[in-house]
Amino acid sequence: MDYVEARAQFPVLKRQAYLNAGSNGPLPRAAVEAAQAWLTRDLEQGRAGMPYIEELAGLREQVRAGFAEVVDASAEQIALMDSTTRGCQIVIAGIGLGAGDEVVTTDEEHFGLLGPLHASGARVVVTSADEDSVLAAVTARTRLIAVSHVLWTTGRKLDIARLKESGLPVLVDGAQSAGAIPPDLAGADYFTISAQKWLCAAEPTGALFVREPEQLPVALPSYFAMTAHEADGSYTARDGARRFDSGWIAGPILSGLVASLACHPEWRYERAAEMAARCRELLEPLVEVVTPPGHSTLVSFRPSGDPGELVTSLQERGVVVRDIPGHGVVRASCGWWTSEDDLERLAAGLV
Amino acid sequence: MDYVEARAQFPVLKRQAYLNAGSNGPLPRAAVEAAQAWLTRDLEQGRAGMPYIEELAGLREQVRAGFAEVVDASAEQIALMDSTTRGCQIVIAGIGLGAGDEVVTTDEEHFGLLGPLHASGARVVVTSADEDSVLAAVTARTRLIAVSHVLWTTGRKLDIARLKESGLPVLVDGAQSAGAIPPDLAGADYFTISAQKWLCAAEPTGALFVREPEQLPVALPSYFAMTAHEADGSYTARDGARRFDSGWIAGPILSGLVASLACHPEWRYERAAEMAARCRELLEPLVEVVTPPGHSTLVSFRPSGDPGELVTSLQERGVVVRDIPGHGVVRASCGWWTSEDDLERLAAGLV
Repeated sequence: MDYVEARAQFPVLKRQAYLNAGSNGPLPRAAVEAAQAWLTRDLEQGRAGMPYIEELAGLREQVRAGFAEVVDASAEQIALMDSTTRGCQIVIAGIGLGAGDEVVTTDEEHFGLLGPLHASGARVVVTSADEDSVLAAVTARTRLIAVSHVLWTTGRKLDIARLKESGLPVLVDGAQSAGAIPPDLAGADYFTISAQKWLCAAEPTGALFVREPEQLPVALPSYFAMTAHEADGSYTARDGARRFDSGWIAGPILSGLVASLACHPEWRYERAAEMAARCRELLEPLVEVVTPPGHSTLVSFRPSGDPGELVTSLQERGVVVRDIPGHGVVRASCGWWTSEDDLERLAAGLV
Repeated sequence: MDYVEARAQFPVLKRQAYLNAGSNGPLPRAAVEAAQAWLTRDLEQGRAGMPYIEELAGLREQVRAGFAEVVDASAEQIALMDSTTRGCQIVIAGIGLGAGDEVVTTDEEHFGLLGPLHASGARVVVTSADEDSVLAAVTARTRLIAVSHVLWTTGRKLDIARLKESGLPVLVDGAQSAGAIPPDLAGADYFTISAQKWLCAAEPTGALFVREPEQLPVALPSYFAMTAHEADGSYTARDGARRFDSGWIAGPILSGLVASLACHPEWRYERAAEMAARCRELLEPLVEVVTPPGHSTLVSFRPSGDPGELVTSLQERGVVVRDIPGHGVVRASCGWWTSEDDLERLAAGLV
């Protein structure tokens, strides 16, 4: 699949310089057509019967294998999620984090991680978003390090393997990492995947990597946690990380996910990195770029005027980026599908 | 909307005697078309921008109001869920049920309730599925009564208001109730709604009724829990039950939900009850019907042969029902859309 062919999968790119995969990626035509076809089938043939259920179970395993490939893990270590938030909830509740415990995180995290951390009752220790600061904040009460691989605000990438030197469990919010940059789970005990972003799937979809599934209690079981159960809810757990599956996923979503996972070319990571580098090259003469070079596919910058107003004026020119509320920055997301022209349109809108 | 017109919304009913709304309801054409149209829009125009987000927020409130109407509650008491399982998790974690506590449930519950109860660490006290037995099982350690309104196995309806005489919080699994029988939340502190069943929506969708939202801690916050937050995850909660919203809901799902909620005629409950009564009338000479009369829209019966084999042989005749594993029964779901002919086809398949 060459670049022209690969980019042509995304109709939105014909209309817009769509630089917002950090929120929701562009959708490939095959994924939408698969979902629409399944909807028609559900409409006409109903949603019932063992062959139907078994077909969906097969798609679940196909999607699980696809996610495993994305993060270079085993399918036994992948649970299917509806969001990164859910993955964080499952890990935090499973660990049993609570009052008296401490968790170390950074000051650049998303509420999908922070909300569940706060709700646990543990003391949430917030440090600057760098490895030294995180490690320095660890105390005898620390039970978990919980950080992003790529920070959604600045696009900085953290060295997770270094954080693991603490000897503590490490929960990684991989929302801006999985599918965007080459997989690197070294150091991560738990790693969340948001499929609607860099994997170009319907939202909300994703997965949770659990390095040692048998070691984490299932705190929030769904029907998919078990193979058999008693009247008091005690049950035989499913093998591996399947026991953490967050719930039912409908046919339109699963069939679309299969297509989305299949739309990415082999050269995905190289080209995405090149486009991010090209983006900063174009923006640096115009604005203060806050993303360090070579970290990720996000390019965040501090505009001279109001970030929200800039986003609106860019949108009017067909350039889609977003601002990060409270951080004073605008964020451009560069995928392997991004073109030189998309980036030039962004730069032209900043002059 | 007369019966012929109303039934014509569901293409599957032209092909099958589809008696399986207790699993997944028939889908109305308008809901599928709305979802498909939104998918095309996402494909061509992307999923970004404040107007897009605000339109989805508006749809969320429209759906919330729709669910409130279904259960005769205020929209302030309705949280949007992806499943009944999630609603149960949110309530059980919010109450903080744990080791040393007891919860009383029945021996006819679904794992969507039982799994979260078991995972809480509380002692799950299982009684016969009747009000006297549940009340008799309450001790000084009981912190919650958690039961179905309509039991998914036998179709028996429990008198929730009587259970509330215990003075304990009552969590009700309303999966086989909401949209099927007239709303009756008297006695329920928490009540789950599964929209993909009797409300004929895409799966997995639903809601959670919380009688006094400000009294229940938010144990599993999503991004929608708050209006603003600090770097440590502490936050300003949204008004009412919105703070329990389980997560992002995509445009195709929301737009389809609006259409599904609007497809039901005013005479829905009367006709569904009539069809259930007619179903038992036809089945009673042929099999042992286990559902008590006048309780619900489910008609469960004990066939002479193997339930699974019967379901398969009925499916081959275009009659869609299901068996309940481990209970030895087959279950027919009668909706307002069910026809006399559907029921006669079922009865003919039992001879």
